[in-house]
Amino acid sequence: MGSISGDVVINKQVIFKNFVEGFPKETDMYLKTSSISLNVEEGSNAVLVKNLYLSCDPYMRTQMTIYENPTDLSSFVPGTPIEGFGVAKVVDSANPDFKKGLFKINHTDVPLSYYTGILGMPGMTAWAGFFEVCAPKKGEYVYVSAASGAVGQLVGQFAKLMGCYVVGSAGSKEKVELLKNKLGFDDAFNYKEENLVSALKRCFPKGIDIYFENVGGKMLDAVLLNMRNRARIAVCGMVSQYNLSKPEGVHNLMLLLEKRIRMEGFVVFDFFHQYSKFLDTVLPSIRDGKIVYVEDVAEGLENAPAALVGLFNGRKVGKQVVIVSRK
Amino acid sequence: MGSISGDVVINKQVIFKNFVEGFPKETDMYLKTSSISLNVEEGSNAVLVKNLYLSCDPYMRTQMTIYENPTDLSSFVPGTPIEGFGVAKVVDSANPDFKKGLFKINHTDVPLSYYTGILGMPGMTAWAGFFEVCAPKKGEYVYVSAASGAVGQLVGQFAKLMGCYVVGSAGSKEKVELLKNKLGFDDAFNYKEENLVSALKRCFPKGIDIYFENVGGKMLDAVLLNMRNRARIAVCGMVSQYNLSKPEGVHNLMLLLEKRIRMEGFVVFDFFHQYSKFLDTVLPSIRDGKIVYVEDVAEGLENAPAALVGLFNGRKVGKQVVIVSRK
Repeated sequence: MGSISGDVVINKQVIFKNFVEGFPKETDMYLKTSSISLNVEEGSNAVLVKNLYLSCDPYMRTQMTIYENPTDLSSFVPGTPIEGFGVAKVVDSANPDFKKGLFKINHTDVPLSYYTGILGMPGMTAWAGFFEVCAPKKGEYVYVSAASGAVGQLVGQFAKLMGCYVVGSAGSKEKVELLKNKLGFDDAFNYKEENLVSALKRCFPKGIDIYFENVGGKMLDAVLLNMRNRARIAVCGMVSQYNLSKPEGVHNLMLLLEKRIRMEGFVVFDFFHQYSKFLDTVLPSIRDGKIVYVEDVAEGLENAPAALVGLFNGRKVGKQVVIVSRK
Repeated sequence: MGSISGDVVINKQVIFKNFVEGFPKETDMYLKTSSISLNVEEGSNAVLVKNLYLSCDPYMRTQMTIYENPTDLSSFVPGTPIEGFGVAKVVDSANPDFKKGLFKINHTDVPLSYYTGILGMPGMTAWAGFFEVCAPKKGEYVYVSAASGAVGQLVGQFAKLMGCYVVGSAGSKEKVELLKNKLGFDDAFNYKEENLVSALKRCFPKGIDIYFENVGGKMLDAVLLNMRNRARIAVCGMVSQYNLSKPEGVHNLMLLLEKRIRMEGFVVFDFFHQYSKFLDTVLPSIRDGKIVYVEDVAEGLENAPAALVGLFNGRKVGKQVVIVSRK
């Protein structure tokens, strides 16, 4: 926000142009600059916030499509700003639940950007999906696709803390190294350079107990061929399908039956009532250095469209954050 | 068994010729006649049984294929008899657990053939799949495919006893009438004569809570489009896929995520320890006429190949039984 005069400042927005087919492009959005008043009307119950950190997440691609049957996540409205999660500071408030100048965040000894990632929606997603949906046991074999992403990197670390054997896949040599050397995965492979079925057989000679599904399509088919009896699949996302006009067919579902596999979709919103329990588990591990978190940071709202598009072309590494302002 | 001389009798077997591609044909099997002795060697622990009723079940098709990775159900061995479930009488025994002339069946006031169906593997399958895997609640919307079959007809009746709304699909007008008029389904449709998605939307304007999956492929894709939040799919079988060299692709799995659907494969063998609990539940309902069971009976072992093949061409109605001998 740049000051114009008094309490009126310049405000930037990333506007969604129109519904998208195929991969999203930077030109599907544009930056709009206008001015807003920094004061809210008394008695209005309104809150005015200043965004500091914004989150770019793959699920946002699904909101760029218009659906015949609306889901929980409503589509973006063409001509209006892209919506998402973020960390914001209260600038003015006529709402008793939000105090001017304060955060609704209790723990500020960790980076504030973490609340878009490890301590925010992606962190809760990893935690709920792994612990609540997969019901892991010590010693089990865990596979995570899109493993260096905002969610995947945490699933792998949660699995290691649980005493599981964890393998991840990602789409570059750099990311594979990150998984093995920084994020503590037992093994990792580049899904772009190997036959998926062979790679999974090599990494899991005894098969997979838990698959944390972020990718869908061919990846799911390959995983199904290498699962153990009573395996579980937590369906967190299917990012390989989001940019297709018709999703790929998955052919190996008969194995659900033969191997008694449970495959379960989940939505993180259903678990937000457990947020404080989640924080109590994860915060100490961050402070003790038992969990690390890799962020890919874009500086400035004007770089947000590129950051969002970068989720789907393999460019970003780790959790994509946009820094609008540091304070 | 026809008597030859003394304790040697003629014995017939249905021999499996070779592994099958596509739909099985009667000529994939042949009848072999030989003679056997009616006595077992003392001290051998052996049991000699006379088969009375034999079961023909769709899962047997999967045993007609050879697999790279063997499953629990081993493939049939070419040149040897087709294996399956049945009701048999102990003719001779050197095994203390089996007494000559007696059944291992405690309740013989119901038709003995029921132990190949409603009181046997298909009955346990319906019971375990519906109550244990689907965890139904009163008032929920239940859909059963292949609903007039050995398992489906029971799932529908269990669901009605539970206070659910139940719709079934089947492949002929006759079967649809059976579902509605004899088996107590609230509604039914012929999957060969309607668009699946439209038929399901018409039968379930509020969507489906529970899908008992017997069919797979296109049916599953259509069901996924019409499920409610937190729906469950018990994967019991995928009979539409058994005769394909490559299974169809299922395209709508993203809905698992959006709708938080749990899809779970199960194998009845895992539930056999609950057999007496199952009998205690189901026997009274049979005696009280609260559950009925439709059987399609083939007379004579020589008609067994046609009966088995008939599972896949829509010819049989209800549970397919082969009567080898009535006593």
